Amino acid sequence: MPTSIFHFELHHTDASTAARLSTFHTPHGPVEMPAFMPVGTQGTVKGITVDQIRASGAQMVLGNAYHLALRPGADVVRDLGGLHAIMGWDGPILTDSGGFQIFSLAEMTEVLEEHAVFRSHIDGSGIVLSPERAIEIQQQLGSDVAMVLDHVVSLPSSPDVLLDAMQRSIRWAARCRAVPPREGQALFAIVQGGLDPVLRVRCAEQLAAMDFPGYAVGGLSVGETPEQMVATLRATMPALPADRPRYLMGVGRPEDLLAAIRLGIDLFDCVMPTRNGRNALAFTDAGPLRLRNQKYQRDVRPLEEGCPCVACRHSRGYLRHLFAAGEMLGPILLSIHNLTYYQRLMAAARQAIVEDRFAAFCAAREAGWRRSKEEVHE
Amino acid sequence: MPTSIFHFELHHTDASTAARLSTFHTPHGPVEMPAFMPVGTQGTVKGITVDQIRASGAQMVLGNAYHLALRPGADVVRDLGGLHAIMGWDGPILTDSGGFQIFSLAEMTEVLEEHAVFRSHIDGSGIVLSPERAIEIQQQLGSDVAMVLDHVVSLPSSPDVLLDAMQRSIRWAARCRAVPPREGQALFAIVQGGLDPVLRVRCAEQLAAMDFPGYAVGGLSVGETPEQMVATLRATMPALPADRPRYLMGVGRPEDLLAAIRLGIDLFDCVMPTRNGRNALAFTDAGPLRLRNQKYQRDVRPLEEGCPCVACRHSRGYLRHLFAAGEMLGPILLSIHNLTYYQRLMAAARQAIVEDRFAAFCAAREAGWRRSKEEVHE
Repeated sequence: MPTSIFHFELHHTDASTAARLSTFHTPHGPVEMPAFMPVGTQGTVKGITVDQIRASGAQMVLGNAYHLALRPGADVVRDLGGLHAIMGWDGPILTDSGGFQIFSLAEMTEVLEEHAVFRSHIDGSGIVLSPERAIEIQQQLGSDVAMVLDHVVSLPSSPDVLLDAMQRSIRWAARCRAVPPREGQALFAIVQGGLDPVLRVRCAEQLAAMDFPGYAVGGLSVGETPEQMVATLRATMPALPADRPRYLMGVGRPEDLLAAIRLGIDLFDCVMPTRNGRNALAFTDAGPLRLRNQKYQRDVRPLEEGCPCVACRHSRGYLRHLFAAGEMLGPILLSIHNLTYYQRLMAAARQAIVEDRFAAFCAAREAGWRRSKEEVHE
Repeated sequence: MPTSIFHFELHHTDASTAARLSTFHTPHGPVEMPAFMPVGTQGTVKGITVDQIRASGAQMVLGNAYHLALRPGADVVRDLGGLHAIMGWDGPILTDSGGFQIFSLAEMTEVLEEHAVFRSHIDGSGIVLSPERAIEIQQQLGSDVAMVLDHVVSLPSSPDVLLDAMQRSIRWAARCRAVPPREGQALFAIVQGGLDPVLRVRCAEQLAAMDFPGYAVGGLSVGETPEQMVATLRATMPALPADRPRYLMGVGRPEDLLAAIRLGIDLFDCVMPTRNGRNALAFTDAGPLRLRNQKYQRDVRPLEEGCPCVACRHSRGYLRHLFAAGEMLGPILLSIHNLTYYQRLMAAARQAIVEDRFAAFCAAREAGWRRSKEEVHE
């Protein structure tokens, strides 16, 4: 595998935390990290053109092998030129393997050692997904980074179930690693093990021994408390190679991102900015604004002073009207604002790291978010 | 009224048709005509940002006094800075008076001489709309062009009903004209009279005598045949002042636009490009494409070669996928394509007029549309 294309360049580690500034080089360009990937589940970040994704500051986007394999089909995506071509996105793309979806979205899922068997959430048709097939799908999609197929279980689960799923995830990672790679595609491993620090460390160490070009922490953001997530990350991080990107899957709220960066996480994806945007919630440094609120009816202020996004060229009163009238432009504009907010947060985090003031940066942001949460509940 | 701001500049009339090339000057800039206005009913062209409206080539957009008065309220729009400010659109805006909506959307409408009384289609609340109030609303919205309140009836209607509504439309136009104007806002009259050429001519002549800065033909595109529409326009046009803009309300298909331009119409608005775009129909020079069709699954071609819109950076196969997957981006991209198509059609029409080949241009376009309609029905 030409992993040399995927050079990880560590620039600086914050003086008082484990937060790190780095660049991840891919065949479709560099990613300045800590970085946040907008989620383009079905080959589109919902409601947003690629120009708007780019304008938000995003450098890398995520696609989902599970969704695209079901519809329109990975072979159809390949025949249309691959995921970069159909989306019109010339930056890096990471695809998730489907491990999370077959345990969250699919129906009647049965995990055998050879593969998982489940029914499509779209039409109920029976589907078999093996580690090898998960890689084949992602090779057809043509992403820059493919993820191994992992065995995700819900939390809480019994120690036996957690151990079994963790061990199967390692065996499946080895099988994914054994598939001849597509040129220009790197494969990231996924650490499982629930909230058990011993299982997490063992899983991380065994995967680290296989020398993947990048490592993800999976199986979090599934209902655990923020404290449990942080404790699990804290235990896991030292067991991951320091010279590879570290990706926390499916997380999360702005405060979760800062907490994870503080422990050394480099990369994130989450539907929060877009899903919340569609539901009329806007993220700001003063905490979230709920735009359906009557109090914004005649509010001429933008969502956030100084935000360069297209939504912030409008008044809160106009945005509220769009949601009240059921107009598509409301969800579109708030999705753009929130994606821009997340990218600006990452840019500010990178700046704070290089200036060795990441802890103070986190404290200041968290104070701001707390301040305006009170406002929202007034 | 400072109608001098609203200078109508006639550049050229086509050698073999009545098609004309002109510029309509407004306080928010010029409109090159023949022109098509995207419809921004509720203060937004559905699913499209103002940057995207501008990129489509549109110079002027339409808003609806009826909708905006009901929600968020014309006073709210005024308090937020007016319609230009809330939309973030710095080009010309025309607002319809509500005449069409109170006869198509509202419930339990009763037309008295003093005013119309009806129930809101949103919450059933009782509303009174007089000619004076229709102007007040449009003054609060702050559009460049306001429309008189007219009495629209469905077709077919009895001669008595048509005559009564036409005469009331003239009396209401006079009452609108008597309201002290807002600075920087022009008032256009609306010709009614159903499909009766005698009523149409009489209405046009009486309105022309009142010296409005622009004239619209209303009450068409309500179910009549294209031939009936053309016959009605043909009768009406000579009675309208040649030195004022002529606006055909709510029309229509690309072929309807060319037929009307041929008779001397300068300005149009219609929901067809956006509504059809949301329903997966794309306009092209080779006729409409229905993007839900299975045959486009692996079609790598754009909707139309040479189209500069963002949708045409993608393949038909990808656009089909977006509709199949229920993704918002499908309606967004096809709306943008169709708006761009209409603007390109207007630009090509203007070029054909200046080159005195408008009849040949129409024949060539119509032949292209017929060719691909067959394809769509295959």
